[in-house]
Amino acid sequence: MSVYILENKTHQNYAYSNLNEGYGKVLRYGAYSEEVIDKLRWMEEVMAPLLNEAIEASGGIDIRALLAESLHMGDEGHNRNKAGSIMFTAKLAPFIAKVSRDPTVASEVIASLGDNALSVLNPVMAACKAMSDAGHGIEGSTIITVMARNGTDFGIRISGLGERWFTAPVPTPKGLYFPGFTEEDSSGDIGDSTITESIGIGGFAMASAPAIVNFVSGTPKDALNTTLEMYEITYTEHKFFTIPPLDFRGTPTGMDLRKIVEKGITPRINTGIAHKDAGVGQVGAGLVRPPILLFQEALVAFAKHYKIG
Amino acid sequence: MSVYILENKTHQNYAYSNLNEGYGKVLRYGAYSEEVIDKLRWMEEVMAPLLNEAIEASGGIDIRALLAESLHMGDEGHNRNKAGSIMFTAKLAPFIAKVSRDPTVASEVIASLGDNALSVLNPVMAACKAMSDAGHGIEGSTIITVMARNGTDFGIRISGLGERWFTAPVPTPKGLYFPGFTEEDSSGDIGDSTITESIGIGGFAMASAPAIVNFVSGTPKDALNTTLEMYEITYTEHKFFTIPPLDFRGTPTGMDLRKIVEKGITPRINTGIAHKDAGVGQVGAGLVRPPILLFQEALVAFAKHYKIG
Repeated sequence: MSVYILENKTHQNYAYSNLNEGYGKVLRYGAYSEEVIDKLRWMEEVMAPLLNEAIEASGGIDIRALLAESLHMGDEGHNRNKAGSIMFTAKLAPFIAKVSRDPTVASEVIASLGDNALSVLNPVMAACKAMSDAGHGIEGSTIITVMARNGTDFGIRISGLGERWFTAPVPTPKGLYFPGFTEEDSSGDIGDSTITESIGIGGFAMASAPAIVNFVSGTPKDALNTTLEMYEITYTEHKFFTIPPLDFRGTPTGMDLRKIVEKGITPRINTGIAHKDAGVGQVGAGLVRPPILLFQEALVAFAKHYKIG
Repeated sequence: MSVYILENKTHQNYAYSNLNEGYGKVLRYGAYSEEVIDKLRWMEEVMAPLLNEAIEASGGIDIRALLAESLHMGDEGHNRNKAGSIMFTAKLAPFIAKVSRDPTVASEVIASLGDNALSVLNPVMAACKAMSDAGHGIEGSTIITVMARNGTDFGIRISGLGERWFTAPVPTPKGLYFPGFTEEDSSGDIGDSTITESIGIGGFAMASAPAIVNFVSGTPKDALNTTLEMYEITYTEHKFFTIPPLDFRGTPTGMDLRKIVEKGITPRINTGIAHKDAGVGQVGAGLVRPPILLFQEALVAFAKHYKIG
């Protein structure tokens, strides 16, 4: 399977992601009909080799810069990537047109990127992982560097506690469902896209993306309040990711285990919603918070590990 | 000279615009060096024929829909067209790649569209003209359908007063200047791009575009207040152009001569700033308001024409 390769130029670490298939009936949400498999084959055999050549010809795309700009264009980088995806398309299209040996294929690949409002999500997630990994394994650090869910458990890792996972049962997201689906159809919270919130975008940057409420539920005011609340539990404000409606304040970045437990405020996550049955796919999008228990257990473990108190 | 042809599908009227050259040293701001002329030749001989074929192959681009979406992506449609321009690029690129007989030319044309954050401005202005013209010439209407400046005079036309222009001396815009230039270099307010404000975007939709203040001066709060102030002098709220941070309220649309004069509030315009000397080009961007005198004169003329009072 072809993957995007994301390099953290400052810290020289790497992360990887597959290509995004779009919304609805997609393998990453559990769908596997003939149509889904055919599309994946086309992506692997036609799209990926051409993208590979185009990205090489471009010299690589600066995803951090793209994200910074997309946050000024109504994206929050996790559930809304409309601006980022067309920016990604506009940046790659000249190279795709140039390196392709078949204009029809070039046209189809550009259209596939441009018509998919999530096309940049996968390289963005890998970029977030490359950023977050650089902050992992710092002696004494209470920063949460990973959040991830598998439909059953919600897991987190703490920078100062190495490879250890803390897990608790996942909640079900609250949100808006695609036509024909309701909360009854929802699986437990699932996916590793919360790596976006882990580095200060997604739910944490919702104030940048008031129009996202049409997709995940709520009002523009809720989006603003979500970001403001996240400043309560984060260590710093991002240097590069800024929020125009908050006078270009940096996004709340670096979830601090101590602050979460002390204030009883859990991280807010924007997420897609998968159907509970295999084969159906994505059925909606919404909001979710991990259980506080997770953070309480991790903080106790942290205190034990560092022999505090 | 090749032009975009914009069709108002509802009212079956048309408007036209040339191709956008970008920022800085460009003919539309008075620059005419060899470099400027060479670029215009390339645009006319290489870019325009390919765009023509691509637009025909696409079946046409819905600029009203594009504008509606770009207002949810941090554009206001006049001085900030970043999202609209890459959306325009992403929509046309598949067709450019497909119809071109030379991959290198296809690549250059796509890059030229995608790298120019104003590439969609010209079709947008023509679309605004096609919208505004449909509202012109309505018996008894006090709506201002055109504002335009030529560097010396500011002119307006009133829907219910036919072809008559009302003019007054232009002010100088206040704003931010490109490196090496100051307010001393500024020409009087110039250009017909205020057709955007005339139909409820641009300065009127600034609340959608908080990041624009980096370009035209001011703070995000000023941008919000500009839109709120314009509701005071407009007849309605736009059906299709909505502002996420204002709970998706329609943009203030249809400047009403009576309200402007009664409240003493003049329209707020985002604008580019041209150098006062021929040959230099664009030197900045900022904000400007027409003189109130203009509207007072027009209202007196309206009363006379309709024998009111």
